[in-house]
This record gives sequence, C-alpha cells and structure tokens, in this order.
Amino acid sequence: MKFEFHNPTRVVFGAGVLGRMGVEAARLGGHALVVIGGGSVRVGGVLDKALGSLEAAGVAHTLFEGVEPNPRLTTVIRGGAAAVDCKADVVIALGGGSVMDASKVIASLPFYQGDPWDMMMHKGPSQRVPETALPIITVPTLAATGSEMNAGAVITNSELTEKSYVSAPCLYPATAIVDPLLTVSVPPDQTAYGVVDLITHVTESYFNGVGATPIQDRMAEAVVLTALEYGPKAVSNGKDVKAREQVQWASIVALNGWVQAGSGALGFPVHQIEHVLSAHTDMAHGAGLAILSPAWMRFAATRRPEKFEQFARRVFDADEAMDGIGRLEEFFRSLGCPTRLTEVEVGRDSFQRFAEDSVRVGGDGARVHGRPPLGIEDIIEILRLAA
Amino acid sequence: MKFEFHNPTRVVFGAGVLGRMGVEAARLGGHALVVIGGGSVRVGGVLDKALGSLEAAGVAHTLFEGVEPNPRLTTVIRGGAAAVDCKADVVIALGGGSVMDASKVIASLPFYQGDPWDMMMHKGPSQRVPETALPIITVPTLAATGSEMNAGAVITNSELTEKSYVSAPCLYPATAIVDPLLTVSVPPDQTAYGVVDLITHVTESYFNGVGATPIQDRMAEAVVLTALEYGPKAVSNGKDVKAREQVQWASIVALNGWVQAGSGALGFPVHQIEHVLSAHTDMAHGAGLAILSPAWMRFAATRRPEKFEQFARRVFDADEAMDGIGRLEEFFRSLGCPTRLTEVEVGRDSFQRFAEDSVRVGGDGARVHGRPPLGIEDIIEILRLAA
Repeated sequence: MKFEFHNPTRVVFGAGVLGRMGVEAARLGGHALVVIGGGSVRVGGVLDKALGSLEAAGVAHTLFEGVEPNPRLTTVIRGGAAAVDCKADVVIALGGGSVMDASKVIASLPFYQGDPWDMMMHKGPSQRVPETALPIITVPTLAATGSEMNAGAVITNSELTEKSYVSAPCLYPATAIVDPLLTVSVPPDQTAYGVVDLITHVTESYFNGVGATPIQDRMAEAVVLTALEYGPKAVSNGKDVKAREQVQWASIVALNGWVQAGSGALGFPVHQIEHVLSAHTDMAHGAGLAILSPAWMRFAATRRPEKFEQFARRVFDADEAMDGIGRLEEFFRSLGCPTRLTEVEVGRDSFQRFAEDSVRVGGDGARVHGRPPLGIEDIIEILRLAA
Repeated sequence: MKFEFHNPTRVVFGAGVLGRMGVEAARLGGHALVVIGGGSVRVGGVLDKALGSLEAAGVAHTLFEGVEPNPRLTTVIRGGAAAVDCKADVVIALGGGSVMDASKVIASLPFYQGDPWDMMMHKGPSQRVPETALPIITVPTLAATGSEMNAGAVITNSELTEKSYVSAPCLYPATAIVDPLLTVSVPPDQTAYGVVDLITHVTESYFNGVGATPIQDRMAEAVVLTALEYGPKAVSNGKDVKAREQVQWASIVALNGWVQAGSGALGFPVHQIEHVLSAHTDMAHGAGLAILSPAWMRFAATRRPEKFEQFARRVFDADEAMDGIGRLEEFFRSLGCPTRLTEVEVGRDSFQRFAEDSVRVGGDGARVHGRPPLGIEDIIEILRLAA
C-alpha cells in the first residue's frame, strides 16, 4: 500500500449552517462571486438567506446565474470572466454538483492561460492542470457528487459532444458548508440519482483497486450500507431530515478521498462510459450510472470474482457474486431509476460510437482504465449487458 | 448530526518513504529541529538515513535527543528552547507517540507566552491553547497513537504527577511521512500496546457518541476488524510488512478525526482514567488501556446496552453485549497484554486516589465526561471490575 493523501477542505455540517455562509466568506475576502444554477435556489428563500448572510457579514457579492446540468465549457468561461470583472476574492457555489464543478473551474480561470479545455483529463499527457484558483466555498443543495469536499470537476464541451474532468490541488474548496435542510426540496428522482452516484463512487474504487485494502473496503461498504438504509427514506419522504443528513454525509465520504486512499483504483470505468452516454443524451448522470453500473459489474465479476463475492456477502448477505449485483440493480429499480438502456431510448446502433468515444475521451485511445482495462469490444459487451 | 471537520495534514504513506523526508522538509524551511527519543532510531540506520535525506535536500539540522515515554513537561520546555536557539524553521518528530506529541508542543513554544502547562486541557476554561506553531513533520516509528495525523499531544507533569493533553489547529502536522518499514523492529509487547491503543481510540468515540452515526460506526468497526486481523500477525512476526502496513494505517484512521466526525463523543473516559494510572506507575499507555477498557465497557454496557450489542454482533458475531466485551478482553490477552490491575501490581488501596485524580485532572472536578459521565464512585467501580 503506497499513497499520498491530502484533503484540506474544512467541513461545516449540520441542519441550519447555511447561516454561517457570510462569516465563512468574510474570512476569505470582501467580494464573492455567487454561482447558482437555473434558479431553484430562489424557491423557499435559500438564495435570499444566503445573500442576507453575506450582507450581514459585510461581504459584497455578484450573482452568476444559469449553470446548467452537465455544465458547459462556454458557461464556465463566462463565469471566469464574471469573476475577473467583479474582482472576486472568493467563489461561492450554491447548488448541486454541476454548480460546484463549474465554480471550481471558474475560480481557476482568472489565473489560467490559454484554452480552458486544455485542463481536462482527456488531454492525457498534454493536460495542463490549473495551479492557482480563488478560494472556493461550496454550499451543496443536493447530495450526490461529493464535489463539495474534493478537487474534481466534470465539464461538458457541447461543440465536441465530450464530457471530461479536471482534478488539481488548487481546486479543493476552502470550506464546505453542508446544510441538509437545503436538500429537503430535492424531488424523488434527483434524490435517487444522487444515491446511485454516491454508491457508484465507492464501488468504482472498491472493484478497481489493488485489493488488500481492508479498511478502505469496509469504509466503502459503510457508505453503501448507509445509502441502502437511508436512501429509500430520503426518496420516499424528502422532509426526513435525518435521512437527508445520512445520505449527504455518505455522498461526501464517498468521494473525499477517504475511501480511495491507498486503494490504488485504476480509473473509474463506469463513470467514463457514463460520461459518453450523458454527453450524447444529456440524461442525468445518476440515471446513466444506474444503467451501466450493474452491467459493468456483471462483466467484471466474471474476470475477478473474489471482490464481488465479498461485496455480495458483506453488503447483501448473499453467497454469490451475481446475487449481490442483482440485489444492487433491484435496489436502483426500487428507487425508481432506469436500469436498462432501452428505458432511456438508447439503441444498439449507438454502441459502437459510444465505445469509441469512451476509449478516446475517457481512456488512452485504445482502452478505458480499470480492472480489467476495457477495449472497444469489452465496452460493447457491457452496453449489451445493459440493453 | 452537527459538526466541523478539518484535517489539513498531508500523508505520504508506504514502505520506503523515509527517503522523502529531506524533500518534504525543504518545502517548509532550511533548518530542522529533529526530535528523537532514547536513541532506538540509531538502530538499523534509521537516523542516519533520515539525516542523510535532509543533507541531500540541503536542509540543515539540529538534533534534540532524549524524549522519554510519557514525555515530561521539562523535556518539552528544553526542546522549545532548542528550537529557538537553532532558529528552526520546521520541527521533525522521528519516533513514537511520545516523540510526536513532544514535538508538537516544542513547535508551539517559540510563540507561546507564559507557563506551557497552561495549554493543557485539565485547566478547563482557563486553558490557553497555542495559536501558532512551527510547521511539523511527523515520521512515526511505531503504530499506535495516531499522533502523526492529528492535532493532539499528551504531556506528563512529573512534579504534579499529572498527565494531560492539548489539542489545537496549529498542531496539525504539515506532513506525515509514514514508512511501515520503520516499525518492523518494534518488539512484540510495544506492538501489542499499539494495537490496543488504536482499538481504544475508536471504541471511545463509538461508545461515547450520540448514536445515529451509521457511517462513523462502521468506520470504527472497520478499524477494529482490521486490527483483529492484522494485529496478531504484526505481534507474532514483526517483519510481516503487510501486517505492519495495515496496523499502521488503522492507527492513523483511528484518530485522525474520520471516525470521530459527527460522532459527538463526549470525552475519552478510558483514556482519562488511564492517564492517571500511567502518571502514577509510568506503565505503557497501551497496557493500561488493555486493563481499563474491558472494565469500563462492562460498566457502561449495563447503562447503554444497545451499542455494545451492536459491537458484539458486528465485530465478533456474538449475540450478547458481554460476550463481545469478553472476546475483546481475550484478544488483548492473546496479544500478551495485561488485562487486570493485579498483574501490574496496582492494589485496591490506590483506587480512591486514582478516582479522585481522574475527575480532577481528566474531568471537570466532579466527573469524567462520557456516556455515562463518571463520578468518583463510578470510577472506583470500574477499577474494581479491572482488579
């Protein structure tokens, strides 16, 4: 086991902590660029409360509105210009994963020379990651991506129909203000997709790791078991704050590096294939994962059964690897998620193109990293299993 | 669930990473105060390798030698003076928990006004924690305290026969260089005490927490299960590097705040009572914990049985709370640890004094914090259960 771990983000967690936003921002500067999505934060007075908190703390603000789901490069570039124009000292992301991811890249753009698309991972060795960024505060309104406490961002280039990601130390948020009350109005489908996303974050490192990481394995199982218990409660009754709390904390632990430390995960293959799927269809990331994750597992379990048997046994008290995978798929269905490509009207005629895009955008040109590595034929087989 | 979490320490983990010390130190300054214990790091060339790494990176150093087990306030004060004299930019702790704890306080002393004993927790409301410290690099040679990645330090005042602790954000090490190869020469008894220490770190928050923290519970269980599996291997064959790795990583996760986040643990009562025991007897901390921990559990389980039942079930596949505790005690014995006060020649005539010291030094004067809070009569009952 050999690794480095560093996550400097400070987390302020609990029902009602939104009111701390102003005080936390004031520690970082006098002018905040507040980044939001399509305006759902206006509902229920969340935005008013947030801006009021800034005003009370003497922090001026400029609002940048309109980050879309699967945030576009063009939007992010406009956000970077807005940060420069208003001379922002700090960028505050008030929204879901898209808003948080967009905000990270926005915060880096005032310091970034050249084409922002160059910072994305798909560039491989020619990628130039950002080295400096304005301090970032994340205030999630959705429990899903874990973006509030990590250094990653996923951005879509709609001209190229490509979705790729960047990860750099300067993108760690300074502070994550995590108030589960902000998630009680999230509708059941989005709640369910968030649960699928967080589960997939840990299964990716669990199944693509080096093995012999007993603490990380059990931490991953802790996240999955918590999602299995509290996810359905949050979906069926959005106002169940205790369930919202547990799902949100699970989503953070799933991708803040704790579960991944030392796991030696070789890539996130389900995510890479899903990024192609949602780049082409603009479907919700979590819905794509619910479809692809069980299919990838069935493929990979035939190659490396032991870890899938452990998962089946410890998470579902099931004897067989395939039983565990079946139970997970059933769980996704029980939350109301699609688990087959036919449900989202993706036909077999797209498989070749999706597989080619996967290895090109999300891999090294020939394969998508993972255990096992996936060539074009492998990905087509996985898509067939998801059909 | 309401909490703040922040741990900015960067961890560099793996067999052989000692060689990185120089490069890591050079990032923090040009002159290092290297703090060591009684000289065991001279054995096997560890110190030579460490100093060679500093020299290769152009970092000058001053050696401060002689930190004893249960490090004394007087030693720490001399260390602080040494840091000032040599104009250290960085303090490097090369040793076990005592050396790391001493180094943290040493790093704070150049900036601390007044009596250093005032920074200790036992002072209660009049405690003045340090606000600034030199950057600290920890290089553990023993897996036990988790001090390498947290902000705490335990110091003994031998004039007062008191052992107390300090915790402050400025005491987080900048970098922890964790090389499991440095632990292969640790003898079986010290290895065993380390295993007991790390287990007790998670059981303290597990059993004294608010409950309803499912992820934290399972993370605690992950640490204990890993210690149960790999601890005996590390004790019986010190050169089993894979076992050493797992035990060391478990010891870090046990007390870096991950398990504790949101648990709302009210104090570490077993530690508080043990500090009195080892302040009076100078016995190894882990040995004291092996004696006191099962006794405290038997006491507390009669008051709050549910959590102890969960522990028995999930960790030992046992039905009854008391069975789980019995199995843990057996495990401590199987590692060669004492589990009764009679084995370390502490008689019943000391109980009253130990109980009084516990509430005075480790509590609020009337009780030691915990669930349940412990008055003098309660502590005497626990000591009787440990007799």
